[in-house]
Amino acid sequence: MRTSIATVCLSGGLVEKLHACAAAGFDGVEIMDSDLIAAYESPEEIRALCARLGLRIDLFQPFRDFEGVDEPTLTENLRRARAKFEVMKRLGANMMLLCSNVATATIADPEVAAEQLGTLADLAAEYGISIAYEALAWGKYVSDYRDSWKIVELADRANLGVCLDSFHVLSRGHDPAGIEAIDPDKLFFLQLADAPAFDMDVLSWSRHHRLFPGEGSFDLTGFLSHVLLAGYRGPLSLEVFNDTFRQTDVRRTAAHALRSLRWLSDRTAALNGWEELQIALPQPPRAFDFVEVAGEDLAPVEDLLNKLGFSFGGGHRSKPVRLWRAGDAHVILNEQHRTPGTRLAGLGFVVGDAEAAADRALAIGAPPAYRRTYEGEYPLPTVSAPDGTGVYWNSQSAADSWLSEFEGGESPETPGNLQGVIDHINLAYPWQEFDEAVLFNTSALALDAAPSADLPGPRGLVRSQVMRTADGAVRIAMNLAPPTAPLQPRHIAVRVSDAIAAARAAKDRGLSFLPIPDNYYDDLNARFGLDPELLADLRALDLLYDRDEAGAFIHFYTPMIGDVFFEIVERVGGYDGYGAANAPVRLAVQRSDGQ
Amino acid sequence: MRTSIATVCLSGGLVEKLHACAAAGFDGVEIMDSDLIAAYESPEEIRALCARLGLRIDLFQPFRDFEGVDEPTLTENLRRARAKFEVMKRLGANMMLLCSNVATATIADPEVAAEQLGTLADLAAEYGISIAYEALAWGKYVSDYRDSWKIVELADRANLGVCLDSFHVLSRGHDPAGIEAIDPDKLFFLQLADAPAFDMDVLSWSRHHRLFPGEGSFDLTGFLSHVLLAGYRGPLSLEVFNDTFRQTDVRRTAAHALRSLRWLSDRTAALNGWEELQIALPQPPRAFDFVEVAGEDLAPVEDLLNKLGFSFGGGHRSKPVRLWRAGDAHVILNEQHRTPGTRLAGLGFVVGDAEAAADRALAIGAPPAYRRTYEGEYPLPTVSAPDGTGVYWNSQSAADSWLSEFEGGESPETPGNLQGVIDHINLAYPWQEFDEAVLFNTSALALDAAPSADLPGPRGLVRSQVMRTADGAVRIAMNLAPPTAPLQPRHIAVRVSDAIAAARAAKDRGLSFLPIPDNYYDDLNARFGLDPELLADLRALDLLYDRDEAGAFIHFYTPMIGDVFFEIVERVGGYDGYGAANAPVRLAVQRSDGQ
Repeated sequence: MRTSIATVCLSGGLVEKLHACAAAGFDGVEIMDSDLIAAYESPEEIRALCARLGLRIDLFQPFRDFEGVDEPTLTENLRRARAKFEVMKRLGANMMLLCSNVATATIADPEVAAEQLGTLADLAAEYGISIAYEALAWGKYVSDYRDSWKIVELADRANLGVCLDSFHVLSRGHDPAGIEAIDPDKLFFLQLADAPAFDMDVLSWSRHHRLFPGEGSFDLTGFLSHVLLAGYRGPLSLEVFNDTFRQTDVRRTAAHALRSLRWLSDRTAALNGWEELQIALPQPPRAFDFVEVAGEDLAPVEDLLNKLGFSFGGGHRSKPVRLWRAGDAHVILNEQHRTPGTRLAGLGFVVGDAEAAADRALAIGAPPAYRRTYEGEYPLPTVSAPDGTGVYWNSQSAADSWLSEFEGGESPETPGNLQGVIDHINLAYPWQEFDEAVLFNTSALALDAAPSADLPGPRGLVRSQVMRTADGAVRIAMNLAPPTAPLQPRHIAVRVSDAIAAARAAKDRGLSFLPIPDNYYDDLNARFGLDPELLADLRALDLLYDRDEAGAFIHFYTPMIGDVFFEIVERVGGYDGYGAANAPVRLAVQRSDGQ
Repeated sequence: MRTSIATVCLSGGLVEKLHACAAAGFDGVEIMDSDLIAAYESPEEIRALCARLGLRIDLFQPFRDFEGVDEPTLTENLRRARAKFEVMKRLGANMMLLCSNVATATIADPEVAAEQLGTLADLAAEYGISIAYEALAWGKYVSDYRDSWKIVELADRANLGVCLDSFHVLSRGHDPAGIEAIDPDKLFFLQLADAPAFDMDVLSWSRHHRLFPGEGSFDLTGFLSHVLLAGYRGPLSLEVFNDTFRQTDVRRTAAHALRSLRWLSDRTAALNGWEELQIALPQPPRAFDFVEVAGEDLAPVEDLLNKLGFSFGGGHRSKPVRLWRAGDAHVILNEQHRTPGTRLAGLGFVVGDAEAAADRALAIGAPPAYRRTYEGEYPLPTVSAPDGTGVYWNSQSAADSWLSEFEGGESPETPGNLQGVIDHINLAYPWQEFDEAVLFNTSALALDAAPSADLPGPRGLVRSQVMRTADGAVRIAMNLAPPTAPLQPRHIAVRVSDAIAAARAAKDRGLSFLPIPDNYYDDLNARFGLDPELLADLRALDLLYDRDEAGAFIHFYTPMIGDVFFEIVERVGGYDGYGAANAPVRLAVQRSDGQ
């Protein structure tokens, strides 16, 4: 399917935008008139540039508020239209978008709208131009795509059809099934946008909060299915007004945008069994394979893991890379890179078919990554997440693949050593990169988004969004930090069967935890009326506690080393959360550094 | 009236917040339990700190979801309450806020709610604690203050009263006049918050978008009047949940918060003729007195003004300060400060009583400013705007006051010299400082806010908010720049009677304007069908044009010098806008620097 994008999705000037669209791999663009008006380049120059870049100008959006008006206004509107058709001729654009009138319409009658649009179409025909008529969600008389189709049918001109925009249909809760009743020859154009489930006025929602497909809560797969089943064969075009994307780097946003379209068309193909359109089967991860921490000198991390009860799993036979493990929780410490600091640098996943997972991620547009492997080493297919984190896939278990490359380790079964699995990874993002990361986790990692929550911290609200597999074996908790706060550290949560015993053993080995205020335990007691012995243990060991209908959660945090820290968690019964109620305390305590 | 503020309005840890509230001058605080829980300090330490700082703990907010529940839940809730009353005893807080149940209520009957609240009040009485019951806008059964009052009346306990929150009343559109029917002895507490006129779900609106009084669109003056007429004599307390204030400097936000309360109580006193409560009469400005541009070397600005047609008004007799003027538009160039760059540093206003204007601004909490004046110089009372811009008031015209301090100038009436007045000043703010600046302009400058608009620029949306006097003699256009974009320059718009002649003369003198794309003129013609001669003039002179029902607007921009530029505007007929439709072109062109 051909891909297109409205220039209004992107930041910068028109020429920059066109270069970015071409570099990302789009087939075409929708040009918003305001972008042309603010450009020094003539329409002829823009036309020639698009031709050189291999971009088709799929749509031009020059004016609004045409139909349903009185006679003098119609005359004036036709004059305006003629002037814009002249521009389109110079630009080489032959399809114009016309939104339903929101301002000047005074006549509700569809017959009048049809007659006036017919007149416009006849004028357009003189220029070889088609008109795609779109029902805006807040159109004065026409706000439902079924009404725009009725008017187009009434007008009955070969060069007049409808433009569908997923936002305008789904934001109003209109059933998209009716799209299949539209004559496919009159389905002129398709604009796609996702959006979060906000309960706010539809105009502000549309103008500020649209998202790329896969980032919001609209059922775009179902929507696109109806459009394709109706017989639409034009481009899939993105029209996403979003305050963030208007500000972010234009090339990165264009690549991000194309990734969303590829994911959507792939997912739609999968839903409908259209195998020829499908990229490859998604490979939801079965488990974490490992987590990689990188830094110049990771001795403090080794000391921390040792005190936590991790066992040393050996040094890599050919690289300055060391393994620490707590049962099935593998932490790789990588000192190959010379950059200072300590950071979470990579995530490994066990999947059914590692090659297919990587190929699919690359086909959807994930940035490729390069990993030095040496003769005889187990190859792990890899890509880079948009923030630079390495992603690795493994079709085998660690024991059957790379584990044997590490030499000189102790047995993880040594009595007293911590036994566990990676419960979740917590990653923080600056606000400009959050939506892109959600899409990457959906499209490349095949994780699903759980509902998000806002957690109050001392530097502002932190938005928390968990992405996970259905069985919970892989969970990534994403945090969106407030713009003015420093980026939060990332952390690795290891799940054990007895967090109290793990904490006691770690304290005995000399590990200092984040100290938790006494007031917190008084509140715990007020909220839950805990058993005094349990409360005393929690208080003495600086443990955090949460409870819901299904079970309980006991957890604690290590101090930070560079931008990384660890959390030990225990899930009692069916507790399925992450101790969100304790996050404000954790954030406050981390900030005050225990003082 | 006593002033108070909820700690949840502010960023940081509890101890920092308390210090900031005291430094700003608040009389008391509402402590949110979550702030205490995250603090290492014991309740006794917080109590002692508040005592030392002179802050009364007016309210404590420890738990929610109490009433309208089944018996087992009630028993559990009373256990929770007792635990929190113990904390309050240690804290020395004797009034508890209880919000209406949003989650666990299953019984809608007000009699049951009253009975259960009565039981709670009796328990609280053992601790000497009162309960202030508040109807949350999204309470399950109780969401209207009239219902919370009815329940309080039914329960009939001396230590049970209502808490009113302007947000919960006004967001639901409930008539606040009914407040006067409440027994004043049962008006226990008052929380004040403003909010923008958003059409969104009331919970998100409340949690993220509340504003301090004077910054939103609620009629808080009317609301507070009803509360005071009802006989309430407790503190005026701010409870403002706002994503921005949670992130900004705690001391600055606390000062900003207190300014909003002072403004509100003053305005309410004025509305009701309560002279003893009023600070001083507001002094709306009659005109701009001058604009001050500061920098180390302002020769490029002098060259620019000279080419624009300004006349040299002389050098100050004792300071490195020079005057340029275009009729009544005075621009002061100040080279006293050694900081590099060129910036708009001060605004002068003509008012009825300059001393009273400055005293009032200081009493409301404007930061004082210090201006070196020498013997025999005309004194201008002054304060500093929160962003550091100097504000000066003058009870006289320039000719009758400071103008004679400038020597050696040419006559402004020299033929060919530009004649005009300052039409408006355009000031850009980072997003963290925008609301504070709106409040300053309202409270200290006595300007009113016009509706705001979002303008698309190449680096993101720019929010534009005009603040003005009713007659339009003084207008300040405020811009909120996108977070990632560099702060926009500020500009000074001078209104003339013939912008085309002014542009032609300036071009003849060698001034280069911002070059405007040709596409813009094609679009102007399409939109307005302009007279060809006018269009040719506009195109040849790089002029911008706008039109509405009332008239037209012709304007142009000079290049930027440091962070300042000038605009020449002509208003034809009753045009009252600012050429907002042209802002995207201006922003795009300024960014591309004419390339």
